[in-house]
Amino acid sequence: MVLFRKARSEELPAIVRLLADDALGQAREVVSDPVDPRYVQAFAAIDADPNQLLAVAVDPKDEVVGCLQLTFIPGLSRTGMWRGQIESVRIAASQRGSGMGSAFIEWAVERAAERGCKLVQLTSDKSRPDAIRFYGKLGFTASHEGLKRSL
Amino acid sequence: MVLFRKARSEELPAIVRLLADDALGQAREVVSDPVDPRYVQAFAAIDADPNQLLAVAVDPKDEVVGCLQLTFIPGLSRTGMWRGQIESVRIAASQRGSGMGSAFIEWAVERAAERGCKLVQLTSDKSRPDAIRFYGKLGFTASHEGLKRSL
Repeated sequence: MVLFRKARSEELPAIVRLLADDALGQAREVVSDPVDPRYVQAFAAIDADPNQLLAVAVDPKDEVVGCLQLTFIPGLSRTGMWRGQIESVRIAASQRGSGMGSAFIEWAVERAAERGCKLVQLTSDKSRPDAIRFYGKLGFTASHEGLKRSL
Repeated sequence: MVLFRKARSEELPAIVRLLADDALGQAREVVSDPVDPRYVQAFAAIDADPNQLLAVAVDPKDEVVGCLQLTFIPGLSRTGMWRGQIESVRIAASQRGSGMGSAFIEWAVERAAERGCKLVQLTSDKSRPDAIRFYGKLGFTASHEGLKRSL
């Protein structure tokens, strides 16, 4: 049985390993012991912000087997609608195909609904067709272009 | 000369009118006098959150001729990168084609850079090809699918 809950600071090394264990993440992340201080700083910034929820999926041995970040965003449009935004979803290779990923996203959607969000959104790299199909099955519609500009 | 700055609460009615003056916004927004209390509540939530910047473009008479919302999002991925997210961009019909929209987005990108963001992102409805072209000219790449699910 896998449980979903808020991440604890001692789980940061495991989360960084998960972020790096990915085709795109490999080139973008730094795995080291101790954890690179930039991750420690980022964890603190997320933890200090009441509109951020960094969550993990843990197996019965309390090992981290998934992570995601949910951001609650207040907005004026659509009569002052809050939206939930999901970012940095990773599922451990050992768990893929188990249905855990879908359950984790549904759990995040419920957390967004609890906070009054009427929309949940995320962007997925076009080079990840499996991920895009996965979200399609979960009721997400690819109605928008996801535009990015590096600074 | 148009100036860009943080929105003031007394500008809320003008901002709501701008949000509604749009093909998609028309069906989604409520224009009334006084302003619908849901907008007042949303404005307060945005204003209370140090990671939100609701901005307006004002003409020399201090009339609101544009608005956008910028959200600063801390994250673990990409070695703890912050991202800036732009939402709810509207430019008054009177200003279209003047270059003001581009200047407004560049202003927002600078605010994101100031706060340490290494990426600026936004999603644009696929039914707005002009908007997607506009962001392309400003250096945004449509690398991602923008997936949404209504709750």
